[in-house]
Amino acid sequence: MRIARFSLPDSAADAGAVRFGLVEGDVEQPEAMVIAELEGHPFTPEPRTTGRVWPLADVRLLAPVLPSKIVAVGRNYADHAKEMGNEVPAVPLTFLKPSTSVIGPNETIAYPTFSQDVQHEAELAIVIGRLCSQVPRERVTEVVLGYTCANDVTARDAQRAEGQWARAKGFDTSCPLGPWIETEIDPADLAVTCTVNDELRQAGRTSQMMRGIEEIVAFISEALTLLPGDVILTGTPAGVGPMQVGDRVSVSIEGIGTLTNRIVKR
Amino acid sequence: MRIARFSLPDSAADAGAVRFGLVEGDVEQPEAMVIAELEGHPFTPEPRTTGRVWPLADVRLLAPVLPSKIVAVGRNYADHAKEMGNEVPAVPLTFLKPSTSVIGPNETIAYPTFSQDVQHEAELAIVIGRLCSQVPRERVTEVVLGYTCANDVTARDAQRAEGQWARAKGFDTSCPLGPWIETEIDPADLAVTCTVNDELRQAGRTSQMMRGIEEIVAFISEALTLLPGDVILTGTPAGVGPMQVGDRVSVSIEGIGTLTNRIVKR
Repeated sequence: MRIARFSLPDSAADAGAVRFGLVEGDVEQPEAMVIAELEGHPFTPEPRTTGRVWPLADVRLLAPVLPSKIVAVGRNYADHAKEMGNEVPAVPLTFLKPSTSVIGPNETIAYPTFSQDVQHEAELAIVIGRLCSQVPRERVTEVVLGYTCANDVTARDAQRAEGQWARAKGFDTSCPLGPWIETEIDPADLAVTCTVNDELRQAGRTSQMMRGIEEIVAFISEALTLLPGDVILTGTPAGVGPMQVGDRVSVSIEGIGTLTNRIVKR
Repeated sequence: MRIARFSLPDSAADAGAVRFGLVEGDVEQPEAMVIAELEGHPFTPEPRTTGRVWPLADVRLLAPVLPSKIVAVGRNYADHAKEMGNEVPAVPLTFLKPSTSVIGPNETIAYPTFSQDVQHEAELAIVIGRLCSQVPRERVTEVVLGYTCANDVTARDAQRAEGQWARAKGFDTSCPLGPWIETEIDPADLAVTCTVNDELRQAGRTSQMMRGIEEIVAFISEALTLLPGDVILTGTPAGVGPMQVGDRVSVSIEGIGTLTNRIVKR
């Protein structure tokens, strides 16, 4: 299933209301894609549709989930750690992004006023489906609802200057998520790419992660209770680089889809 | 005003329901203190009481607020930076603690399974009263609801080993807050103390902060939108040290009150 969050189109009696839905169709034929409204939220064993269906092009997709927190893993691809002049850490390096940093597909990234070096970081995002803590590796698949694309947008100059990254990686609009949550995919070896204005900047594969999904979720949940909808970012491959106001940045993950955002002046 | 969050006592028709209330009376005479129930939440210009009043001893105080995020400032007292072998940073060092780390007065701190060195850090906490971003220093007082006590509980070994502090300072129960929010106090020069089993461990004054309330809130809100109930921790004075299972830790701030928690085995 592809689970999206969206606002209802003008043709709906309750236009503008926010709902979850299932996206159906072939991404190569976007004009034929549709979205089927879900009853309630998708954090149930078998989410049901209401019977209302719209062309996907008629609705506005939102961030597919509103996480209470985003936990991210740094330096999880050896070639990215190397390009930053860092070692792969002996233990996973984990940091938080706040709920206020989340935006959805086609929303704008507002260039922060305190930075002159805002960079893209394309990442596979894990969406947690259940309240859980201290999850053993062999049970991690039970707590994962699915996967989506993320851009761990980073103010590189502030990251270097400030030591801890609350501002550098937590500023408003620094966490684009979407376009939807794919629940039926094996995350072990997916292509992760990032383009800026259609120029390829990052191209890696999830199989290059130093620590896989099971290890990451077990490590984080040993310390922090995860809530349904919480998001874990799994690190970025090599090729990170600056974005400018006016740029269009796209994160694509094989088998999931493409998340596109524009950079605007704050 | 002293704003608390509490669960209603057995004597109430709606026993167990969670409400906000105003705490009245002299902390030196706790048996005479009472709590007056508030209508709704306290993030309104003039919160009103319902008329129901209970002895404070009959209710269970909870964390006075449920923040969407906690933003904290590290190394904000020179003597603490020195005891850790660190310089006072050239720019404020900011990090996040998640909502899942919050506990209230008299709740237990669960010693995390991944650490052998859990330490106390007594801190003045700012409680934000309004949605705000990019707040200029001269308008910071407008967005502050009040102040409470916090313990920025830290797994020191994990903090050293992991580089970024999501686990070390974000684990479940690592953010005790309370006992209530004091809205009528000047935070400029308050005594901040921490005791463990009645032994004095930390004793500082908020006037020793390297960066004051106005600078901190302006710096953080330049990047991150703050929501009503969000909490900012302002750093800890010297004297941090380990706590063991069974210990009772108390953070006291002059003019606010005392926040006490016990350490238990997870």
